[in-house]
Amino acid sequence: MSILIRGAVVLTVNDNQEVIEEGDVVVEGQTISYAGPKREWQTSFARVINGRGKLLAPGFVNAHGHAAMTLLRSFADDVPLMYWLEKRIWPVEARLKREDVYWGTLLAIVEMLRSGTTTFTDMYFFMTQVAEAVEESGIRGVLARGLVGVGQQAEKGLEESEQFITRWQDEAAGRITTMLGPHAPYTCPPAYLQKVMRLQEKLNVPVQIHLAETLEEVRRIKEQYGLSPVALLKETGLLERPVIAAHCVHLSSEDIDIMRDYEVHVAHNPGSNLKLGSGIAPVPEMLERGVVVGLGTDGAASNNNLDMLEEMRLAALLHKGSRQDPTVITAHEALQMATKNSARAVFLNDVGMVAAGMKADLIMLDLHKPHLTPRHDLVAHLVYAAQPDDITLVMVDGKILLENGELTTLDEEKIMFQAQERAMHLVREQTEI
Amino acid sequence: MSILIRGAVVLTVNDNQEVIEEGDVVVEGQTISYAGPKREWQTSFARVINGRGKLLAPGFVNAHGHAAMTLLRSFADDVPLMYWLEKRIWPVEARLKREDVYWGTLLAIVEMLRSGTTTFTDMYFFMTQVAEAVEESGIRGVLARGLVGVGQQAEKGLEESEQFITRWQDEAAGRITTMLGPHAPYTCPPAYLQKVMRLQEKLNVPVQIHLAETLEEVRRIKEQYGLSPVALLKETGLLERPVIAAHCVHLSSEDIDIMRDYEVHVAHNPGSNLKLGSGIAPVPEMLERGVVVGLGTDGAASNNNLDMLEEMRLAALLHKGSRQDPTVITAHEALQMATKNSARAVFLNDVGMVAAGMKADLIMLDLHKPHLTPRHDLVAHLVYAAQPDDITLVMVDGKILLENGELTTLDEEKIMFQAQERAMHLVREQTEI
Repeated sequence: MSILIRGAVVLTVNDNQEVIEEGDVVVEGQTISYAGPKREWQTSFARVINGRGKLLAPGFVNAHGHAAMTLLRSFADDVPLMYWLEKRIWPVEARLKREDVYWGTLLAIVEMLRSGTTTFTDMYFFMTQVAEAVEESGIRGVLARGLVGVGQQAEKGLEESEQFITRWQDEAAGRITTMLGPHAPYTCPPAYLQKVMRLQEKLNVPVQIHLAETLEEVRRIKEQYGLSPVALLKETGLLERPVIAAHCVHLSSEDIDIMRDYEVHVAHNPGSNLKLGSGIAPVPEMLERGVVVGLGTDGAASNNNLDMLEEMRLAALLHKGSRQDPTVITAHEALQMATKNSARAVFLNDVGMVAAGMKADLIMLDLHKPHLTPRHDLVAHLVYAAQPDDITLVMVDGKILLENGELTTLDEEKIMFQAQERAMHLVREQTEI
Repeated sequence: MSILIRGAVVLTVNDNQEVIEEGDVVVEGQTISYAGPKREWQTSFARVINGRGKLLAPGFVNAHGHAAMTLLRSFADDVPLMYWLEKRIWPVEARLKREDVYWGTLLAIVEMLRSGTTTFTDMYFFMTQVAEAVEESGIRGVLARGLVGVGQQAEKGLEESEQFITRWQDEAAGRITTMLGPHAPYTCPPAYLQKVMRLQEKLNVPVQIHLAETLEEVRRIKEQYGLSPVALLKETGLLERPVIAAHCVHLSSEDIDIMRDYEVHVAHNPGSNLKLGSGIAPVPEMLERGVVVGLGTDGAASNNNLDMLEEMRLAALLHKGSRQDPTVITAHEALQMATKNSARAVFLNDVGMVAAGMKADLIMLDLHKPHLTPRHDLVAHLVYAAQPDDITLVMVDGKILLENGELTTLDEEKIMFQAQERAMHLVREQTEI
């Protein structure tokens, strides 16, 4: 079954940052077979979609998050980080059940599809339920069972990771890939990371880890090991594996050199870093040295939304202001960060661009909006002015998942109802204890 | 004619930050006559609006901007500030005609109403056209003719200001108030500010000025006068008048003391300050010392949208991150900044709260959205997660201007068409020169 999307302005996000003013995109099965100027077709298509007056772009790749934390959206805001974790988030998470994670993840997927995300990255627990949510919804997922290397769950986590990866890697018609997910240097001591590395060699999947998120983390790791968190991971040998590190807010110049030398990928989470008071990551410096930097929302408890348009805008604005230089991270660079570079960051090489041979993960936006008028520069419009509601079509793996405001695979009402009920139940339990 | 809005969750933003879980709001004419718990009414109403499942809040007050610059949205991004001004913005502005400003302002009003703004502040030229746009649309406007104190326009600006203020103050059924608008210390030397002050004494309106926006401004003023921009305005005597100062990014501790002592109001514009690389204003420090800080979008050429939801979110996030303290500028404080405090900042004392006796400037949002689920904290939802499309109703001065996605007073299609045509024409002229 092939689909022709006809006459849209196409932001290819290819290596030439090509913008096709009046383009055709042909999708055959899961894949884009043509993306170029409008032409006459002799072929007959199962469907022709009118793209006139629309902007077509790669779907966003959310490089870091914890989907089911939607259940804790607005549960604890504007409080100190350790209080947030220890008194608010962890006690509730300790009572989360499989079904909570399932419905919380589905809520996240609804929100992500509605704001143009076609691939998300997840590090959480009850990952079987997360994989099922990916399978049912049609979205693409890069999934890791979060691992904490101390306490009773340490060994169990490794076992569950192996089972999960063996069961789900390349499943859901190839839309699921997996990772190992050691939480952070301060929760996974070197001896435990050694075990993770042995498992990595066996399973041959990348590793995702939180790294250098707060000054406090850097201080604690330095005190304990005499090294920065980045240098500690290098010492441990972890960085010789394919690694994506989330946050990377507090890096020394030497740390950035290590990241570059070991080709460590980064998931930049500007919204979460601001909201939790973690700080501002040295993204321009990382980009200058050639580090691959993708973009993530983190969980909804610390953002509080999963809107990659907002995250892309923050990435473009924040560093201009903090460095007092309006030329850093242009709109084009922010768009690349949210699409192609995020895909590279999570080790996917066939999404993030609109080009023949790539997976058909696309979004279309309606340009006929007051806040997108006049049309001087459409890349700037997408990065600095567009809103989730402008998105009229979301396609993942060649399948339309959202069209004209309606989700095609998910029962949104049921998901919102379940998420609301379960969240209220979890919080009531918390209050009662 | 009276209207009852029944059963909404009401964020009053009154001095107790009261949230009414199931509230009634009664509007009589231009004014709120009741805002409190749901009750039985014997009165008959011209209309009863169902507020169940909705959030009702004061409309946003945009404390600083240049509405007609919508025509230059996405015309020049990611370039150095002086290049942006001298090579891109000013040459086009020099060719703007009355009708361009009229249509550009209407486009801004469409966008602002759609994102919940009920009062905007404007400093531009051809202000008669801006006033007409306010009158026709039903929005509330605080309007100032921008003044540059050097060159041929200096005296003409003062004359036009006097004519404009005399003609339009308290017009449009009281929805228009006016200000004097000396552009900035670096474009209005002290001798010119003296003239502005004499006019202020005669007309008795407040003064709006750009102040301490960039480090370069501070450096130039120090070099020329041996004083900071704030201290220079104090010396000149301007601060003894009612003044709102836009930006205030680069302030010394002494400057902030002066602002407090002279009760200078501030319009914080985080989006524009980031995008132009101006820096991050010391907002927590100003709030700690009791300075009144409102919130503005600035013009669409440097933002690139006029969405106060986004601006409010930026204000709440940015300072947490830059100070590494998640407790500064809570969601409640950001909401106050965008409503009540913005109203105070622009010298309006009867908007910005949902309370009996206040003008009926209100917005309602649909809470039944995935990104607003679950409902732990609705103030946090409004500040950290809501989108313009969630807004279902906008009322200004007791009149409904937007309901269920439709504007009631403006021809949106015609406005977008005119804005697009005029912007393209302006840019073509630029290229041809």
